[in-house]
Amino acid sequence: MRILARISYDGSKFMGFQRLKNGKGVQNELERVLSELSGKKVTVYGSGRTDAGVHALDQCIHFDFDLDISLDKLQYILNRNLTDGIVVNSIEKVSNSFHARKSVIKKTYEYVLLLKEKNPFLSNYTWTIYQDLDISKMKEASKVFLGRHNFQNFVSGKRDNYETEIYDIQFSKNGNELRISFIGLAFYRYMVRHLVGALLDVGMGKVNIFDLKDALENPQKKVAFSVALPNGLYLKQVEY
Amino acid sequence: MRILARISYDGSKFMGFQRLKNGKGVQNELERVLSELSGKKVTVYGSGRTDAGVHALDQCIHFDFDLDISLDKLQYILNRNLTDGIVVNSIEKVSNSFHARKSVIKKTYEYVLLLKEKNPFLSNYTWTIYQDLDISKMKEASKVFLGRHNFQNFVSGKRDNYETEIYDIQFSKNGNELRISFIGLAFYRYMVRHLVGALLDVGMGKVNIFDLKDALENPQKKVAFSVALPNGLYLKQVEY
Repeated sequence: MRILARISYDGSKFMGFQRLKNGKGVQNELERVLSELSGKKVTVYGSGRTDAGVHALDQCIHFDFDLDISLDKLQYILNRNLTDGIVVNSIEKVSNSFHARKSVIKKTYEYVLLLKEKNPFLSNYTWTIYQDLDISKMKEASKVFLGRHNFQNFVSGKRDNYETEIYDIQFSKNGNELRISFIGLAFYRYMVRHLVGALLDVGMGKVNIFDLKDALENPQKKVAFSVALPNGLYLKQVEY
Repeated sequence: MRILARISYDGSKFMGFQRLKNGKGVQNELERVLSELSGKKVTVYGSGRTDAGVHALDQCIHFDFDLDISLDKLQYILNRNLTDGIVVNSIEKVSNSFHARKSVIKKTYEYVLLLKEKNPFLSNYTWTIYQDLDISKMKEASKVFLGRHNFQNFVSGKRDNYETEIYDIQFSKNGNELRISFIGLAFYRYMVRHLVGALLDVGMGKVNIFDLKDALENPQKKVAFSVALPNGLYLKQVEY
């Protein structure tokens, strides 16, 4: 029986989603509890990795599981056995052709900035910016990223393919909190943090929109903008 | 010049308020930054200790400091140099007879419980209770603690004097969140956590109001109730 579970986790309590030898990945914890429960090794597949410190409000995972208990009961047992840092929000049966990563059609990430406010209780959950920001310029600059592009200058590490498509970027401001959400087909390593960093550089007047355009149109040029801290980043939704 | 500063800190990022040899107390961090700034050793006095994991929304500290800068400037520099886990909310000049601990006339602690909700982002900031609670019974039981008593059965560790006075205990419920605040003259080691633990024991039907009364009236009897985790506890206000 193949199961899709939607989970949230506090990224400050793990060293990223991926399974690690030191056991500190979210995947380790999920596999530990599921394997103990079923008495045999269970492999968990995620919709994608999240870096150390990055949070998830709706990470999706699948796994094959044969225990004869109801889905409600399974969710309850998982939540009581998983560490405080992870919660299973929902659980459902899916067909054997479903794959948490390969079946994704859309992902939403959100970055939460705190403007000129030092808040000790939010430091793992936001990134405080003390400089003045021209938010309307950031909004204008964000349009450069919409559509299909080669994002090589906005991705860390090597890969074969840097192309992906961003469907939408939304800004919302509430008090001292500025949220920027990114909806797209796929986001590569550190990509959202690169995009946020570049938009902040624009907002602070360090670079302009044409610099971003240039970096996007000339992937081989190796242009580097700022990279936002992981603390403020949330995997907000995964759609199938 | 004697300075009173009101500070907040995220207790999950420190091993308590008190100065420690490993440097992980809140006091260490405050003294480190103040001493660097003034070029000589500065000693910080707090209104009282908080345990590892316990938070402060309004801890008060005093220190003697002779640098010739404005109070606004001092606050700004402190906030930019102190780790993310501490913020100075306000700063003022006080007379040399003022003492952060000895001058206290009233303290408020608040305990935040989360009822039947697992929330990975709040696990350092609340304590989740999965059992049913009879809150009206807890409210009734809390009245037992009001006034001046010997709280020996509700304090950890040895001291000469276990007497203190509790002026008020308030309950407030908002959705799944239950807050219990304690206003009193002084609270000893783990005392609020003992009081909350005992009230939870009543709420779960494990003990009754008379058990609490008995433990309070017979300090030598060595009665033990539950002790609440530090995560949900906040030093909320200190009054002089």
